Parts: sequence; C-alpha cells; structure tokens
Amino acid sequence: MTGRLTVVGLGPGPERWITPAASAALDAATDVVGYGPYLARLPAKPGRVLHASDNRVELERAQHALTLAAEGRAVVVASGGDPGVFAMAAAVFEAIEAGPAAWRALEVVVEPGVTAMLAAAARLGAPLGHDFAAVSLSDNLKPWDVVLKRLRLASEADFVLALYNVASRARPHRLAEAFAALGEIRAAETPVVFARAVGRPDEAITICRLDEAAGMVADMATLVIVGSSQTRVIERPVGPAVYTPRSYGVGHEV
Amino acid sequence: MTGRLTVVGLGPGPERWITPAASAALDAATDVVGYGPYLARLPAKPGRVLHASDNRVELERAQHALTLAAEGRAVVVASGGDPGVFAMAAAVFEAIEAGPAAWRALEVVVEPGVTAMLAAAARLGAPLGHDFAAVSLSDNLKPWDVVLKRLRLASEADFVLALYNVASRARPHRLAEAFAALGEIRAAETPVVFARAVGRPDEAITICRLDEAAGMVADMATLVIVGSSQTRVIERPVGPAVYTPRSYGVGHEV
Repeated sequence: MTGRLTVVGLGPGPERWITPAASAALDAATDVVGYGPYLARLPAKPGRVLHASDNRVELERAQHALTLAAEGRAVVVASGGDPGVFAMAAAVFEAIEAGPAAWRALEVVVEPGVTAMLAAAARLGAPLGHDFAAVSLSDNLKPWDVVLKRLRLASEADFVLALYNVASRARPHRLAEAFAALGEIRAAETPVVFARAVGRPDEAITICRLDEAAGMVADMATLVIVGSSQTRVIERPVGPAVYTPRSYGVGHEV
Repeated sequence: MTGRLTVVGLGPGPERWITPAASAALDAATDVVGYGPYLARLPAKPGRVLHASDNRVELERAQHALTLAAEGRAVVVASGGDPGVFAMAAAVFEAIEAGPAAWRALEVVVEPGVTAMLAAAARLGAPLGHDFAAVSLSDNLKPWDVVLKRLRLASEADFVLALYNVASRARPHRLAEAFAALGEIRAAETPVVFARAVGRPDEAITICRLDEAAGMVADMATLVIVGSSQTRVIERPVGPAVYTPRSYGVGHEV
C-alpha cells in the first residue's frame, strides 16, 4: 500500500473559492490534518479521520501527516488560503528534508489556492495590479530588523505591499512600527487597506491613509495592503475601489 | 435593466483550478469578453456571446465590457490566472476612472483566481514559503531601468522573486539582463525555476542555478521563480522539490 500526501489550500473561507482540485483531494482523503477551525469547515464524511491541531504547531502537524502517509494512508494537509504562501507547504518540505529517507519517496502534491491577498485585492478592485511584495510581519520566524529592512527596501522599490500576520499579542505596536518605517519613504496620503475576513460573514474592509493607519485595529484575520506611489482610490456611488495602474513612469493610455 | 460586470480569473489552464465562483459567473453571463485563447477554453452555451480579442488591447477590451454592462448585459471579463495580478482587473478600473460617470455606478465584482506563481510554486514544492515579490518584466508598461532597480532592491531585501512576462520578441536579451542584475547580489548557486504552462499538457519545468539561467529558454507561457539566499532544493526519488523555509536568520526548528 502506497500512501500519499496532498497539501491543499481552502482559500480565505467560502466554498465558492475552493478549487475543484482541492475539493477532490479532500473527498479522496482517508485522513485530513489541519488547524482546528479549518477542519471545522469540512462536512462529516464516514471513514475520513480529521486530525485537528493548534495553529502554533505547523512542523509537528507536517510530521504527523507524513507519518500517516508513510503508513499508506491518503492524507490531506488542509491549509487556509494558498498552502504555499505563509502556510503549510513549506513546513511539509522542511519536515521531509529533515525526516527519514522514506518520506522523500512519498508522492507529495501541493494544490494551489486563493491566498488572502488575492481575495482582498479582488474585493477592493485591483490594488495588486502592478509589481508587489508579500511580507509576513511575524517575528516568530525572522528577526524584526529583517522585517523593517525589507519594508524599507520594498518602499524604495515602490512595490505595493501585502502584509500578512500583522497582529501580535506579544508585541501590539509592531504594525505601527511597520507603518512608521514605510512612512519614512512613502507619502502620507498613500492608500492603506485593512481587509478582515474577506468573503466571510464577519468581513470588514477599511480604507485609510498611511498617516492614519497606525490608529486602525487589526487582528489575526486581517490582511493589510499598502499602496505604491501610483495606487489610486476611485470614489463611486457603489463604494470606493482601490487599484494600481498597470503602467509606471510612462504615458498613461487613458 | 441593470447591467453588471464580473472580472474572473480562469487560473493557469485546467478546469480543476477554476473556482466555483468564477464558473458560476461564466454560467450566468450573457457576454464574455477576453483574449481569444482563454475564450476558446469555454464550452459553447446558447445565448452567451463570446467577444474575443487580441492580447495587446487590454484597455479597449475593458471599455468594450463596460459599454456592454452599461447597456444592461451581464458581462464577464475572462482573464488568465488571477485577474488582479498583471491581468485584466487593473485595466477595468483604469477604464472606469477615465470613462463616463455611468460606469462608476455599475456593479463590478472581481473574482480571485489561482495566479501563475501559485500554480508554479505548488508544482515545485513551496518556493514562495517566505517573503517574496512579484515583478513583471514587461517594459511596455514601465521603463526598463525601473525593472532593474526593483530587481536589485528585491535582491538586497532577499525576497524570493516571481517574474512574470519574461519573454520579449522585441528585446530577447531582457531576461538575461535581469539575471545579470540579480547575480550582482545573489549567489551563483541560487535556485532558479522555469515553470512553463503549469497544469497544461505542454507543461515543462526546469530547475537550474542563477549562473546558468541566462542560457535557458523562456516563452510567453513561462513564469520564472528566483530563490532567496534560503531557498533549497531537495533531491528525491520522486523528483526534486524546491522550497523556502518559513524562518529566516533564527534557529531552525528542525
């Protein structure tokens, strides 16, 4: 019996954003390993075992999934968003590299998904319509001075920024420090979007200026997008849209 | 009669990566506007009009779609990948901002999708598992010196890079120039992936080193990923995997 491991992304929440490939992998699984709230979204299915874990134990979760797959099970690791963006896929390959040789012989498939920044951008208009960078503000996984250095260089490059993992109970002022670093280079009126729980019933979207952003509230479900020098807000009767034009530093076509 | 416009992403190609939300929008459309090869993927449907165009006329295509929606039609603009990443959503909002006031009153919905870098990353392992930047190498839309400046700053920040629009008939040496700029900062052995037509029958994946990358062939269907200093290749009996660990500059957990 040959086991296999599929790492799937469930997207930001609603079923309408889960790819058919991810759904098919979940249907075919004997075991699903993941963070509890993600597994709670799945319908009960006879014969399918759900292995729920805390969100702090990504590596242990990956090792558990690989152990089950090596035993011959059809295992799915369920991740939020896209599994390759600040999510479970990297943890699985870290575990494979450090683990027993048998894990390298396993068939491992990663199924892409809709990551939070794409859903947030779609909800707003097209803020990621030009070059952009995605940065996790978590300092569990890298020193905070690396984060600040990256934000400054990304600002100098005039990338739009998608900021993941912006909330920290241990360091509540971290996001304000990030905005201060960006504000050294980027204009005070730069549009900033707080996109919380996009696509879910508790969705909340706030658009503000960079010099107001430090006063806004962000939690674990919030993704922040900081515009480039070109990002624009269009006021409309149906609500504002935020977008970044495709062209940069050349004559606009319109 | 109130028209509406939905901008959907068809993903990189296969149906299994098209979200149910995008499929539902296509099913409900009276008119679908898009680049010819994308529309050719759609099944014929009585009463649904397909408006195929060349891939060079994004703004005209957006204006055409908005005109149809303003006439009361249920219009879908079909984009490859995710519509918000180097695709049609930004062109639609450029057209809205510059167009007649009536276009601002239209209901416009953007449906996110699987963009090429996520599909390529999934196919490889997890190369985007840490901070990364997405850069279009097209110099139709920005000066080439802006591209080179961004690549240098992104290298200094040690971002993984996802490079879109890497092929240019007019300037075939552009990609080699980009690799040369990156090679000034990033190590010669940095992993580089050429991911062509991921998920389609003509898929081709090549992994090489940065100092070999200039000799590789890339076409319009190729996305290139350039690793950071941390990106690793794992040799496996089932084929190599490329991934970037979640942590940076702190003790690895494994």
